[in-house]
Amino acid sequence: MATDQLSTTFAALADPTRRAILARLVTGECSVTELAEPFEMSLPAVSKHLRVLERAGLIARGREAQWRPCRLEARPLKEVADWTERYREIWEGRFARLDTYLQQLKAKEKKNDRKHRGK
Amino acid sequence: MATDQLSTTFAALADPTRRAILARLVTGECSVTELAEPFEMSLPAVSKHLRVLERAGLIARGREAQWRPCRLEARPLKEVADWTERYREIWEGRFARLDTYLQQLKAKEKKNDRKHRGK
Repeated sequence: MATDQLSTTFAALADPTRRAILARLVTGECSVTELAEPFEMSLPAVSKHLRVLERAGLIARGREAQWRPCRLEARPLKEVADWTERYREIWEGRFARLDTYLQQLKAKEKKNDRKHRGK
Repeated sequence: MATDQLSTTFAALADPTRRAILARLVTGECSVTELAEPFEMSLPAVSKHLRVLERAGLIARGREAQWRPCRLEARPLKEVADWTERYREIWEGRFARLDTYLQQLKAKEKKNDRKHRGK
């Protein structure tokens, strides 16, 4: 098991339900019951996901005994963004090259079209 | 097991060795032997990591029977960046608020300092 922060964050994000929970928390604090509703999941199943998110520091939970609302903690997401940023040049370069290639293909096709019509 | 693209990407990134392999590939194509060197790992162990990265579409491998060089495929990283981007406002907001709070604390401390010196 990897234990560095970034690995823990990535592992926590590797689940569509957990990502949907984070998306829901963008609108504000939620109780576990409120979070469980849209997923048609049992409270224990949602609680399990919340524990993973809490361990990764992606959510924090209130200390109110009755309610314990969850709120989003965005700092680990910033770390993911910072890590990804190093690769931006590569994908932008790749896409720029792909674009050039497609433009060349188009130009070639046009030229061929003109040739055929000329015959 | 989650099977959506983003979950597969996040799961592949949840390992420091796999992220180090991607970082190495930024400088260009590499053979498995070259990739294994800095990690003091066996070739089968590195190959296992490469299979995870390849399944996630984060690397592609050449078809040359002898060499099969690995190269970075940045598209899934762009998807991670795009996903993270939705949360930027939140962490920027949070950090801005934290900054305001620290400024207030500092101002309060200065005021207290002046009061104590005044006594």
